[in-house]
Amino acid sequence: MSFRIEHDTMGEVQVPADKYWGAQTERSRNNFKIGPEGSMPKEIIHAFGYLKKAAALANTELGVLSADKAELIAKACDEIIAGKLDDQFPLVIWQTGSGTQSNMNGNEVIANRAHVINGGALADDKKVLHPNDDVNKSQSSNDTYPTAMHIAAYKLTVENTIPGLTHLRNALAKKVEEFAGITKTGRTHFMDATPLTLGQEFSGYVQQIDNSIRAIKNALVMVAELALGGTAVGTGLNTPKGYDVLVAKKIADLTGLPFVTAPNKFEALAAHDAMVELSGALKRTAVALMKVANDVRMLSSGPRCGIGEIIIPDNEPGSSIMPGKVNPTQPEALTMVCAQVIGNDVAVSVGGMSGHFELNVFKPLIAANVLQSARLIGDACVSFTDKCAEGITANLPEIEKHLQNSLMLVTALNPHVGYENAAKIAKKAHKENKTLKAAAVELGLLTAEQFDEWVRPEDMVGSLK
Amino acid sequence: MSFRIEHDTMGEVQVPADKYWGAQTERSRNNFKIGPEGSMPKEIIHAFGYLKKAAALANTELGVLSADKAELIAKACDEIIAGKLDDQFPLVIWQTGSGTQSNMNGNEVIANRAHVINGGALADDKKVLHPNDDVNKSQSSNDTYPTAMHIAAYKLTVENTIPGLTHLRNALAKKVEEFAGITKTGRTHFMDATPLTLGQEFSGYVQQIDNSIRAIKNALVMVAELALGGTAVGTGLNTPKGYDVLVAKKIADLTGLPFVTAPNKFEALAAHDAMVELSGALKRTAVALMKVANDVRMLSSGPRCGIGEIIIPDNEPGSSIMPGKVNPTQPEALTMVCAQVIGNDVAVSVGGMSGHFELNVFKPLIAANVLQSARLIGDACVSFTDKCAEGITANLPEIEKHLQNSLMLVTALNPHVGYENAAKIAKKAHKENKTLKAAAVELGLLTAEQFDEWVRPEDMVGSLK
Amino acid sequence: MSFRIEHDTMGEVQVPADKYWGAQTERSRNNFKIGPEGSMPKEIIHAFGYLKKAAALANTELGVLSADKAELIAKACDEIIAGKLDDQFPLVIWQTGSGTQSNMNGNEVIANRAHVINGGALADDKKVLHPNDDVNKSQSSNDTYPTAMHIAAYKLTVENTIPGLTHLRNALAKKVEEFAGITKTGRTHFMDATPLTLGQEFSGYVQQIDNSIRAIKNALVMVAELALGGTAVGTGLNTPKGYDVLVAKKIADLTGLPFVTAPNKFEALAAHDAMVELSGALKRTAVALMKVANDVRMLSSGPRCGIGEIIIPDNEPGSSIMPGKVNPTQPEALTMVCAQVIGNDVAVSVGGMSGHFELNVFKPLIAANVLQSARLIGDACVSFTDKCAEGITANLPEIEKHLQNSLMLVTALNPHVGYENAAKIAKKAHKENKTLKAAAVELGLLTAEQFDEWVRPEDMVGSLK
Amino acid sequence: MSFRIEHDTMGEVQVPADKYWGAQTERSRNNFKIGPEGSMPKEIIHAFGYLKKAAALANTELGVLSADKAELIAKACDEIIAGKLDDQFPLVIWQTGSGTQSNMNGNEVIANRAHVINGGALADDKKVLHPNDDVNKSQSSNDTYPTAMHIAAYKLTVENTIPGLTHLRNALAKKVEEFAGITKTGRTHFMDATPLTLGQEFSGYVQQIDNSIRAIKNALVMVAELALGGTAVGTGLNTPKGYDVLVAKKIADLTGLPFVTAPNKFEALAAHDAMVELSGALKRTAVALMKVANDVRMLSSGPRCGIGEIIIPDNEPGSSIMPGKVNPTQPEALTMVCAQVIGNDVAVSVGGMSGHFELNVFKPLIAANVLQSARLIGDACVSFTDKCAEGITANLPEIEKHLQNSLMLVTALNPHVGYENAAKIAKKAHKENKTLKAAAVELGLLTAEQFDEWVRPEDMVGSLK
Repeated sequence: MSFRIEHDTMGEVQVPADKYWGAQTERSRNNFKIGPEGSMPKEIIHAFGYLKKAAALANTELGVLSADKAELIAKACDEIIAGKLDDQFPLVIWQTGSGTQSNMNGNEVIANRAHVINGGALADDKKVLHPNDDVNKSQSSNDTYPTAMHIAAYKLTVENTIPGLTHLRNALAKKVEEFAGITKTGRTHFMDATPLTLGQEFSGYVQQIDNSIRAIKNALVMVAELALGGTAVGTGLNTPKGYDVLVAKKIADLTGLPFVTAPNKFEALAAHDAMVELSGALKRTAVALMKVANDVRMLSSGPRCGIGEIIIPDNEPGSSIMPGKVNPTQPEALTMVCAQVIGNDVAVSVGGMSGHFELNVFKPLIAANVLQSARLIGDACVSFTDKCAEGITANLPEIEKHLQNSLMLVTALNPHVGYENAAKIAKKAHKENKTLKAAAVELGLLTAEQFDEWVRPEDMVGSLK
Repeated sequence: MSFRIEHDTMGEVQVPADKYWGAQTERSRNNFKIGPEGSMPKEIIHAFGYLKKAAALANTELGVLSADKAELIAKACDEIIAGKLDDQFPLVIWQTGSGTQSNMNGNEVIANRAHVINGGALADDKKVLHPNDDVNKSQSSNDTYPTAMHIAAYKLTVENTIPGLTHLRNALAKKVEEFAGITKTGRTHFMDATPLTLGQEFSGYVQQIDNSIRAIKNALVMVAELALGGTAVGTGLNTPKGYDVLVAKKIADLTGLPFVTAPNKFEALAAHDAMVELSGALKRTAVALMKVANDVRMLSSGPRCGIGEIIIPDNEPGSSIMPGKVNPTQPEALTMVCAQVIGNDVAVSVGGMSGHFELNVFKPLIAANVLQSARLIGDACVSFTDKCAEGITANLPEIEKHLQNSLMLVTALNPHVGYENAAKIAKKAHKENKTLKAAAVELGLLTAEQFDEWVRPEDMVGSLK
Repeated sequence: MSFRIEHDTMGEVQVPADKYWGAQTERSRNNFKIGPEGSMPKEIIHAFGYLKKAAALANTELGVLSADKAELIAKACDEIIAGKLDDQFPLVIWQTGSGTQSNMNGNEVIANRAHVINGGALADDKKVLHPNDDVNKSQSSNDTYPTAMHIAAYKLTVENTIPGLTHLRNALAKKVEEFAGITKTGRTHFMDATPLTLGQEFSGYVQQIDNSIRAIKNALVMVAELALGGTAVGTGLNTPKGYDVLVAKKIADLTGLPFVTAPNKFEALAAHDAMVELSGALKRTAVALMKVANDVRMLSSGPRCGIGEIIIPDNEPGSSIMPGKVNPTQPEALTMVCAQVIGNDVAVSVGGMSGHFELNVFKPLIAANVLQSARLIGDACVSFTDKCAEGITANLPEIEKHLQNSLMLVTALNPHVGYENAAKIAKKAHKENKTLKAAAVELGLLTAEQFDEWVRPEDMVGSLK
Repeated sequence: MSFRIEHDTMGEVQVPADKYWGAQTERSRNNFKIGPEGSMPKEIIHAFGYLKKAAALANTELGVLSADKAELIAKACDEIIAGKLDDQFPLVIWQTGSGTQSNMNGNEVIANRAHVINGGALADDKKVLHPNDDVNKSQSSNDTYPTAMHIAAYKLTVENTIPGLTHLRNALAKKVEEFAGITKTGRTHFMDATPLTLGQEFSGYVQQIDNSIRAIKNALVMVAELALGGTAVGTGLNTPKGYDVLVAKKIADLTGLPFVTAPNKFEALAAHDAMVELSGALKRTAVALMKVANDVRMLSSGPRCGIGEIIIPDNEPGSSIMPGKVNPTQPEALTMVCAQVIGNDVAVSVGGMSGHFELNVFKPLIAANVLQSARLIGDACVSFTDKCAEGITANLPEIEKHLQNSLMLVTALNPHVGYENAAKIAKKAHKENKTLKAAAVELGLLTAEQFDEWVRPEDMVGSLK
């Protein structure tokens, strides 16, 4: 491999000759060999593209950067945004907790790439742009990295997470309609209970997802607030007047998302409560999805020794040893994702609580976990919807068998014979393995006709949604 | 001890003669000897008072319960609400996951206490009210217990948690004003950084708490939705028409809080996402408070070998062996509370994700953890405010010493000499243990006069809030 | 209420006249009104009784305390150990993170109680013992509190947790024998799988608990190491030579437990990894018990619409609205306990990771959570065993019905017809709702006689334990 | 892209023509587009290489597989173990929770690769090996996947985690010797305390890591137990007699690690408590490392406004805006790793607790998290050691300045003047900003000569290690 010499304030560094990154990136690459290379999320890299471009435009508009330089920066940034320079970002999550070298990785790649776009060569001593004085102008890692976190998290959440959840929600809502007329036994404590419709059961899932989306949207309000303009410690040192508001507007324009400048930059650098809150909303969503996915796999259990009231699509052979076995693999993938998101939330909380004074230095950890959670929920919802939820059908014979057998239909008799007499009927039926009707009549508490009139499962499912 | 005989659908049970509870409570008391007796939170007991009274009133208004019975129920409930019957609720958190026996504990105590209020005796065979048929009318444990959870959590949050947070927030906001003119060194990565004012530093804390309160309020919107009216599985079986809306209104009237009936009762019984969300908001608050409390103890560290930029009140001798030692005990209590809340949130998540079919049966666990978190945050904020935050003063000599020594004042030179030259100055000063000015002048990068003009800490703190 | 005046190095304090505690306790009581009063675990209080007595005896043996004073201290400590002075310890968990005031609470109560035992009066100006110079001799809160934590945690674990687990383990082991001959369908992915015996299924539970006990015992090895003798920062300042080893031996003698002095006192004060490790072992146990309890409730589900292969005891009416309903309440209590322990472990981890320099100041938090986890697991295991596990019986008709229906018996044909042909048989049987035998014969892959010879569930359960 | 047709029991599937995987892998690849492709950890893939080879050898030795077939399987497995076929394993973590398709991915790649090694072509209709009947002989996903988890986790832990920890432990142990003679102020509650040596301070870190390694080794004892031989539900169906013991021995021989067959296969399939326990040991290690890394960064804080008692290596420019700034980047990376491991442990706990009946279906989640934790701890320890810990030096002037200033030296006077008089001295010195000696003499409690004799920091550091 051939190298060129780059330098920074600490001295000279050998950098691979064909790479756009510079001295600081290379130092970090060598100093942090922890886990797989290049683990810094790509969403963060692309977000740096937006923010460096926005900063250049704002700097020019405010008169502190020439239009020529801004244009060059913007061109390089467009390539970053388009994912064309992904391989120029070799750094890992497990670096400095401010993400400084990833900010410098961006500065260096932009400066060098712009130089090449401008007709220069990587080996040139003198470059058209300085990574700190030009590309990083009016910025510090301390405000750029959290800004990149917010841009990346917001974008991914609205482009992947919420659409995935909505996709699932809509598929389940169709099932609510489809299953509206199917009365089935309810189950509480995993035990037989009074009836409801299969549609009602699914309506609870829809409500859970609707509420989850609402919670995520609530959290996004704070994620829309950007630290940029706070620079080193939140004071906005070395930024032109009006810069913070303007640069947030530029980012909003470039992304089409409602970003604004954070009302308090000290908070925005020193704490990442907005990310903690988003992580909490994703965790709350995972808790909801875990319930939904568990119900689906348990309701579809069998085919002959389980509950078996719904049928889910067969997608792959379920066992390498048991021929013909089919398993609820999509619910399994989804529940594993949920467990991951619940764990990630703890990692984010530990990182979030550990800021000191003017800076939280668990930034890359927080970013990586929130982004993974957002990605996994979105992807898993789409997978679960397309390969499972949409194909769910009711297993009517099993549903009917369970419904007719359920002793809890006796609850309909409470208003007629009282709770204690109704209990006597149920207990007798259970003990003597009889029907409720037989037990009721034998106990002399009512006639067979009254039983048929009073105990109608389809009348027990109420008018509540 | 003397006993009387009570019975339920399983048979007879000996109950202490002077207690208002009945057979089912006594069964649960004997069956669940796990941890200290009576651990079911008192807030839940009192919330049952509100809901049982509201249910009786609604039942009467809808024509399914006599006004006489409702009045008796209401009288007994008023005593529960007032805390007069706390010792009649001996059950523990670690019982059935639906809280059924705590619901029955309420039904039994109300029925028996009402009987006594009505002039009867506990030993009477025939009572004026039946715990199931009258007190529990139009109800099931499955909708009452989650309703009690929501009432208790909402009340405690608005009466204790938010006021505690607001109290702290206001005390810190005063410090923001008080410390507005005090320029001090910033610290990032625990290392010296560019200056800010002590008021700015504290303004970040205020913002963190404001955001936390906002997040809690967002979560309360869902906690205001009540399951009551769903009965056994969410269908509203055995409830009169219009009952769910009316009973929520009655509870709102009795508590003065904005409770409404849940839009989907299946969700409200089978999932406790609203409580999970509230727990997440409290956790997010704990993450924020951990940062604030850590800053306070670290800033006040010393008195002679630490950072020592603020002084906090001395409240008690700090050491049993080191004479004269004073410790940041209030921040310590607060950070321990935060750790507990973070752990409680995981317990709540595990409980919340584990519902099946029509019922989540981790209700008492969820309730106990959310209520403890809400209580501890509120109490600890008041304690921290009154015994510590309000008494914080700036240690001006230390602040000034640090400020003048900080090498990071060099950052003000970036626009004048560029990042790389500025770095040379800082490095020379550090290596040769000199002032920045001396190093700058020796390097020939500027004159002493220029240094004095360009490097003014009070000009570096910006105009950002 | 009447008061007397006590003083400490900060001045005078009014203390309730009839209480044994002194100035520092009273200060802390007033300064920390967080959560219910007296929440510091009683196990910690009693452990202070052991350690203060042991310290007095060691001090006397090493010539730094008179025998008379030691005897008085010992007498007061014996009352603490016996629980007679529990109401003299009003402090809360949420105080200073070193537990200093709880140590002083012990010192003050012992000094005052000893004075009274010696014939003095609480109001006397001059007392026979000084809380710091005598009772706390050769000690600091920094080494006493962690020592009390270890004594309390070790004792509770061996007296409550492990016996509870062993009790459950033995009950389940009896079921392994009892159910050894009962062949039933297996279930993987909640779906029908190849058969095993009910005894084999329960043998997995026994193994899980055995492994949990082993993990807890591994963790106890470190909990047996005591910080006492390290005093303020681990150096043993102001202790006589040989004190640390001797005082640990005294504690071992008094408790009958294998305590030893910690090999490194700096670690023992500054970190509580031993407690974190014990918490982790309890969490691992909770993870195991969650699985066992879930299996029990799911296997017993029904009675008519679930899996229903085992029957568990009916302990209380299951529903306030559904007559005759019986629920798996003991498994529910146990799984709630497990969720709590999993959450507590996170609180302990956050506390454990947050020590700085010479002291971890999350001690009361760590102690309270570990002790609650240890208590709940022990208690819940006993409850679950006595009220549920011992009464489990096999529901043979359901087991037999499921076994005969299971399509996964086809796996026995793999060696005879190959995986792919076996799959064809299973799929045909499933699709056409036939028996495996009918499907196999129709496909011409084997004869009915071959089927009967090859597919024998009782031969499929293997010889593995 | 060109394709070939592969089939399984569900029918035909198009597979990329040049890939070794078959129909089931392709199905899973298409069905689970969740997160980045190929996320199943490579350590798991390589572990499958060992186990498939071992199974083939055992099958041959027990007479159920021809030696020719076994040899072919072994050759393909050797390539997997060597990492040559990594790109043939495209599946993700988020698939079926049994890892069935990853087991089949292994079976298919081995069968096809062996066919090619044997001179065949991928497009051949008839292959020399059948993925289920030959490569998967005597196996099920249900016992192979957990076996691969254990092999991978054990190997990684002993090859990466423990060596990394030992590397750090040894570097710190050298510092203990190097810093043995340097007396410095202690700090408790972040406040000045009595002195200790810098070597003593570091000895606590060494003890923490030693204890962590011991805990990890304790956990490995159970990870050494392999599920293989249990097949579908733990009964060992379709395995030859003696297979389980023999195949574990083969794996032990191939890996050189002490693997044995699990004593109870039902537990080994249905629960992954061994992995939960290992995760807990890694979490406990993370808790310890967090403390060590925090101390290092706080002790090195400054350079002029912090604690500054140690100096750590400068590895990269610390700020993109503050020239000359150097930050504790290695401690930051390590603490972020610790936060991740703490979060991963929760994910593992949630997965571990969620097994039902004969199988836990959170296997890939559990594997991925444990392996990430093990990898990150090992890597981060090496990075932290090489780039930071080994280069730590004492900042003697700062240490001496703090030591002489510390008011807590007064503790040495306790035995001479009593705790209360000593407190008076410290308080006077603090209030009047004097030296302890001046305050003591002014109070008339001792002479200057006595002070000099009694208060010697170097005599206060004790004889404890």
